[in-house]
Amino acid sequence: MIYVLQHKKLRVQRPQHLKSLIPSKDLVFGRQFTDHMLNIQWSAENGWSDPLIQPYGKISLDPSAMVFHYSFECFEGLKAYKDKNGKIRLFRPDMNMKRFKKSAARISLPDFNGEELLECIKELIRLEERWIPVERGYSLYIRPTLIGTQESLGVNSTGRALLFVICSPVGPYYKTGFSAVRLLATTEYVRAWPGGTGDAKIGGNYAPCVKPQIDASKKGYHQNLWLFGENDELTEVGTMNCFVLLKNELGETELVTPPLDGSILAGVTRDSILSLARSWNEFKVSERKITMPEVVKAAEDGRLIEMFGSGTACIVSPIEGIYYRGQNLKVPLDPNDASSQAGPVTRRFADTLLGIQYGEIPHEWSIILN
Amino acid sequence: MIYVLQHKKLRVQRPQHLKSLIPSKDLVFGRQFTDHMLNIQWSAENGWSDPLIQPYGKISLDPSAMVFHYSFECFEGLKAYKDKNGKIRLFRPDMNMKRFKKSAARISLPDFNGEELLECIKELIRLEERWIPVERGYSLYIRPTLIGTQESLGVNSTGRALLFVICSPVGPYYKTGFSAVRLLATTEYVRAWPGGTGDAKIGGNYAPCVKPQIDASKKGYHQNLWLFGENDELTEVGTMNCFVLLKNELGETELVTPPLDGSILAGVTRDSILSLARSWNEFKVSERKITMPEVVKAAEDGRLIEMFGSGTACIVSPIEGIYYRGQNLKVPLDPNDASSQAGPVTRRFADTLLGIQYGEIPHEWSIILN
Repeated sequence: MIYVLQHKKLRVQRPQHLKSLIPSKDLVFGRQFTDHMLNIQWSAENGWSDPLIQPYGKISLDPSAMVFHYSFECFEGLKAYKDKNGKIRLFRPDMNMKRFKKSAARISLPDFNGEELLECIKELIRLEERWIPVERGYSLYIRPTLIGTQESLGVNSTGRALLFVICSPVGPYYKTGFSAVRLLATTEYVRAWPGGTGDAKIGGNYAPCVKPQIDASKKGYHQNLWLFGENDELTEVGTMNCFVLLKNELGETELVTPPLDGSILAGVTRDSILSLARSWNEFKVSERKITMPEVVKAAEDGRLIEMFGSGTACIVSPIEGIYYRGQNLKVPLDPNDASSQAGPVTRRFADTLLGIQYGEIPHEWSIILN
Repeated sequence: MIYVLQHKKLRVQRPQHLKSLIPSKDLVFGRQFTDHMLNIQWSAENGWSDPLIQPYGKISLDPSAMVFHYSFECFEGLKAYKDKNGKIRLFRPDMNMKRFKKSAARISLPDFNGEELLECIKELIRLEERWIPVERGYSLYIRPTLIGTQESLGVNSTGRALLFVICSPVGPYYKTGFSAVRLLATTEYVRAWPGGTGDAKIGGNYAPCVKPQIDASKKGYHQNLWLFGENDELTEVGTMNCFVLLKNELGETELVTPPLDGSILAGVTRDSILSLARSWNEFKVSERKITMPEVVKAAEDGRLIEMFGSGTACIVSPIEGIYYRGQNLKVPLDPNDASSQAGPVTRRFADTLLGIQYGEIPHEWSIILN
């Protein structure tokens, strides 16, 4: 009998003692974890086991488990917020579930019902309510992860897997408001390519980016700007999607982000920014290829308006400069405020998204949990 | 104090009971393991811990360990053979150590002294001597693995790591001698890219290849032939390097394998085949780009002689056909023996390498252990 993942089968084992909460000022991204975790086992013979919320604790695997050798691992990242009425809110979690399934399929990990998994995750978040910080910009980061656990060194699909979800209270990406970043446009390394896995949130996309990131950091840059192809197309910024606001050669104000061509991650924040921009209907919104020469030309002509990265962790991350093939390109921030770390449009996206996430701006994207 | 990896610090903990040996006929590649494993911990603060051989057993990690999320994992594969005098032999293990270090560096895992590690691995193999099968074609497969274990969801270098080595008794890749494979030339998926990680033996290169492999298998093909670029250059076969023996357009007999341009793995067997072929000095030996159209043209002209994949697991794997963009390309096997599963040159490489590995042909590549 092959069982499907079912929320109604969820069981809860509580720990004997709860941990002490951590003062928000002491939070470091992804270093502190809550009292429980969700575990769901899968096997090819039996399908999905009953979901189990149990005390947060170690995972014990055979050293031959495929996750250690062949990178059978994919994950998601989403956040739970507490609004001013004390309600717990999630932001578009259905999109995370869809992407999680897609990532799993790309590396032959088992499929599951995303709605059922989301209901289990909601139970976990309700149990961890005391861990959700109340301060603006703080939240509970949720990390669903799926790993292949079969004990085999053969390179083939895994007959066993473990889906687990852990939670980490986190603060705002930049504690003192925005902090604009300087990018190193990377020409030596390539993050992803057509026919590869750049649109899947799988472990294998991340470790190879750390050496270029360390190299950039040593040269005084915060992140890599990942380029692709002969024409140096912009693709992603660090682990974020990438946006350029410019006056194009037709004189139109245009917000450009690279298209979902299979080599960039389909960010939830990216999609939300595009939707907001289209609903505002104040400037042209384009998902199209954009090259560094086009950005350089726009900057030289005084047509480059703003640039930013987008992601769940930081919402938006304003960009103030790019080192590209021997030259330092300056990207404008706020033309009316020399001390500002973000341009007005970047700031407006951030404020609107935060407003929706914390329930201050009513929107269907914000799901109330309790 | 930062400690380096030192063989002389090696300690051994033996299990209370040894496992029963497994009859060679029941061996499945990479599914059965020996009594011990080698573990060496690393931390940024203290460097490498004293190497410890201990009973084979589970690895227990925090669910936030970076190896589960961002694929901080690289590995090696080598074999220990028992010769007819009962001596244990390794085949060019120095090359595995060099590649292991290079793979680790690419994903910001810690460096170590390869000679010291090899001495520790030799101790492990000596302890596991009873597990080394004596039959021709059988061996003990050694799997050194290095994983990032820091408990953090931040995408950055790992401050903690674990190097472990496990051993698995294995049989010949094809129990009944050679079995020629049919390949699906993959145009939908791309294994690696310039500026990527195709030359590093890291986990992230493997999981994405399994879905294409399953797709190929469903269509009746044994492996993928990975192509690259507009001209459909040959790169690798499954998880093996790739060789083409042909009469080129100048009428020369030429053995061609794709060059080490950063996008293919620098196989130990590949290097050994090139060295042997050059020492024989009977045909031209080229590391150069070769495209599918060139292979198709050679086949049409009757100039394609043999093709094979090479790797530690199978030594050489003869190829009998390729499905490429709508056509089935037939690759010759032995022109003098219709029932043969391998051409004479492919067979000669295999026989020579096996002869060296089992100590029947004296060669500096074969290292005696005891």
